[in-house]
Amino acid sequence: MPTLSPLKSDTSLPGSFVQPKRLLKNLATVALIGKLGDTGVKRQALTQEDIDAKAWLIQQARSRGFTIEMDGIANLYIRRRGRQKNGPIVMTGSHLDSQPTGGRYDGAYGVIAGFEALEALEDAGIETKHPIELVAWTNEEGGRFAPGAMGSQYFTDHSMIKAFNSIQDADGIYFRDALEKALIAHPGVPIRKQTPDLKYYLEAHIEQGPLLESTAHTIGVVSGIQGVRWFTIEVLGSTNHAGTTPLRYRQDALQTAVVVINKLNTLTSDPKDLLRFTIGKIEVEPNSPNTISDRVVFTIDLRHPCSELLDELSQKIMALSGDSEHPCTVKVTQTMQKKPCLFDERVVQTIHKSAAALDYSKMDIASGAFHDALFLSECCPSGMIFIPCCKGISHHPDESITTFDAEAGARVLANSLAWLAA
Amino acid sequence: MPTLSPLKSDTSLPGSFVQPKRLLKNLATVALIGKLGDTGVKRQALTQEDIDAKAWLIQQARSRGFTIEMDGIANLYIRRRGRQKNGPIVMTGSHLDSQPTGGRYDGAYGVIAGFEALEALEDAGIETKHPIELVAWTNEEGGRFAPGAMGSQYFTDHSMIKAFNSIQDADGIYFRDALEKALIAHPGVPIRKQTPDLKYYLEAHIEQGPLLESTAHTIGVVSGIQGVRWFTIEVLGSTNHAGTTPLRYRQDALQTAVVVINKLNTLTSDPKDLLRFTIGKIEVEPNSPNTISDRVVFTIDLRHPCSELLDELSQKIMALSGDSEHPCTVKVTQTMQKKPCLFDERVVQTIHKSAAALDYSKMDIASGAFHDALFLSECCPSGMIFIPCCKGISHHPDESITTFDAEAGARVLANSLAWLAA
Repeated sequence: MPTLSPLKSDTSLPGSFVQPKRLLKNLATVALIGKLGDTGVKRQALTQEDIDAKAWLIQQARSRGFTIEMDGIANLYIRRRGRQKNGPIVMTGSHLDSQPTGGRYDGAYGVIAGFEALEALEDAGIETKHPIELVAWTNEEGGRFAPGAMGSQYFTDHSMIKAFNSIQDADGIYFRDALEKALIAHPGVPIRKQTPDLKYYLEAHIEQGPLLESTAHTIGVVSGIQGVRWFTIEVLGSTNHAGTTPLRYRQDALQTAVVVINKLNTLTSDPKDLLRFTIGKIEVEPNSPNTISDRVVFTIDLRHPCSELLDELSQKIMALSGDSEHPCTVKVTQTMQKKPCLFDERVVQTIHKSAAALDYSKMDIASGAFHDALFLSECCPSGMIFIPCCKGISHHPDESITTFDAEAGARVLANSLAWLAA
Repeated sequence: MPTLSPLKSDTSLPGSFVQPKRLLKNLATVALIGKLGDTGVKRQALTQEDIDAKAWLIQQARSRGFTIEMDGIANLYIRRRGRQKNGPIVMTGSHLDSQPTGGRYDGAYGVIAGFEALEALEDAGIETKHPIELVAWTNEEGGRFAPGAMGSQYFTDHSMIKAFNSIQDADGIYFRDALEKALIAHPGVPIRKQTPDLKYYLEAHIEQGPLLESTAHTIGVVSGIQGVRWFTIEVLGSTNHAGTTPLRYRQDALQTAVVVINKLNTLTSDPKDLLRFTIGKIEVEPNSPNTISDRVVFTIDLRHPCSELLDELSQKIMALSGDSEHPCTVKVTQTMQKKPCLFDERVVQTIHKSAAALDYSKMDIASGAFHDALFLSECCPSGMIFIPCCKGISHHPDESITTFDAEAGARVLANSLAWLAA
């Protein structure tokens, strides 16, 4: 068996045993399950497509002799044994469910690259101290049953299942019923009774943003996940006839909303361009061309890696509530808050060393999106590896990655897992 | 028979024969037909409620011995004879159809006040040279079958019926079928074969704006109807993840739309507050809180009494098309244009004299809304009388008027009609 050498490139490292052809074939195969158009994927959580993707992965795992288990929310675990049979495990993985009109790589890349890493370890004959488990989390996207990241949240706190069970999808199907169907779909797979102790969690994922590609880096060493705050701003005015009401008499909710948006743009101006400020949704009532609107509701999505900055900005945004300079009433509600997470320094350094050992260009990057790793970081030292996605496009059939980057991510992941589990 | 004296107050003027109790009772009775909640009305064009309202008016007209006819689009005509049996007629009226959640007075006031004027002339025993006709136009509102003012448009040009016939309502019912049902609903009423020559057209209506009330005037002498232009502005950007895309990489359609709206607000700034600039409708795609929008479409409703000013502004608005300073594409389309109309000076002066003779406070006012009078002004000297509506509220169940104003409007209308038909 080869010795692990963490500080220099070595062809005997498990990363060298990654087989790009096998990796690409598996990525292409799973993309057929729930195929949408030429390049898209519709494989929403707990649908038949999602069940089929897991069934396919189970089959692959069986052929390699890995141990397979599920848990009470249909998270799928594939274990490669370590020397310490019941010692704490090193976990990698992501999710197989997609957005309703999603792409081939968001989630699936992390699962397939994780499986490739396990296969590479097998092929290299490397023995680790800690078992390594690949996980495919249930319902990360939240597109069918909101919120997302249910599988990883359940992993950290089983009692959440009670709240999840009564959530319905757009067709009125309860989560508990969809889950039951998924659980009985794999009769040969035992349900895990106890949650194992975790030593580390490491997730590979496409960046879902443009930074790696535009700066020509292959590997993003994820420093953490930005904190996020959601707000809803409701502007109440008075409806009236567009032709008959002089502007001085108007309480035009839409025009007041524009005044508030201008203020918010000034408030959130960031020369460093680290702050992510987005107004993605506006609803106007009555939304008729010749009627002055009396109600406008819009959303704010605000993200930054620094918790204090988010606190300070949130206070300023909340202070727009009841603003008296407008002819309308402005009401601000914070609807969601998630503190920034900083990934574990040991995991971050392991990824750095692994990428360096393989001569890949790399950069530190904060994740703008949520991932299951956000919740795993609450129970063990965690980290993430990003690879570029073309033009930063994600949650869309046009999502794509290069062969070079796909291979690089799997190699860095395989090395990192071997070192973390050594 | 009394002699008409146009320049001084005279109790023998027909306006003195207006009976406020009868007027209010008729307004209250017609408001029951299609009653919505406590104060609203839902009496959309060519529905059973609309048919019932006309049937009720026919019954009232029969009891006073007036001649009743309809035309091919179910406009209802009630004629009080003049000395010249077949001479050109003086016409007054408005519409009985309402918005889907409308009020009691928009349209109905002009019809009921017109009927009260005919009754007042009868009660006063006044003989006019020209016959006076009350009309209830079909489908002024356009809420069920768009566009509105179909009845008055048909009156000016019968060939328009071809285009109207194939228009469908939200339930897929064709205009021609709804019309046929309305035409056979009043079997005793003959269909007019020939359109009579018009000498004058005069329509009473609630202001649908706040000016008369806020300046404490009882009678609005309408100088004309503002011109209107409608535009659609489409902003095309690029969708992406709100958390992962730095602002410098974004083509955020919503933020570009806000930039364009700010420009439009500057462009349309009018210290005189005569220009009516309204953005009433915005559609955002995909309209999700954590997704950068790639398409925003909003409407502009622009009105002013001066045709040249509208031309100049329209050119500037159209020039925003293809604006290259934004990260998005901006496309402006003009979707509707109606030139301003100036009412006939003889009709305007007759209203002025009539209001003065009755000692009502009055002001010149431009109509911000369309009315059937806009189309009638194309075939004969026309004019309108406005009365205040509380808080300027219209197209809403809260629409209301005072007893004093209701009576004043009917008195001024009765005098004016008698003088115009003398």
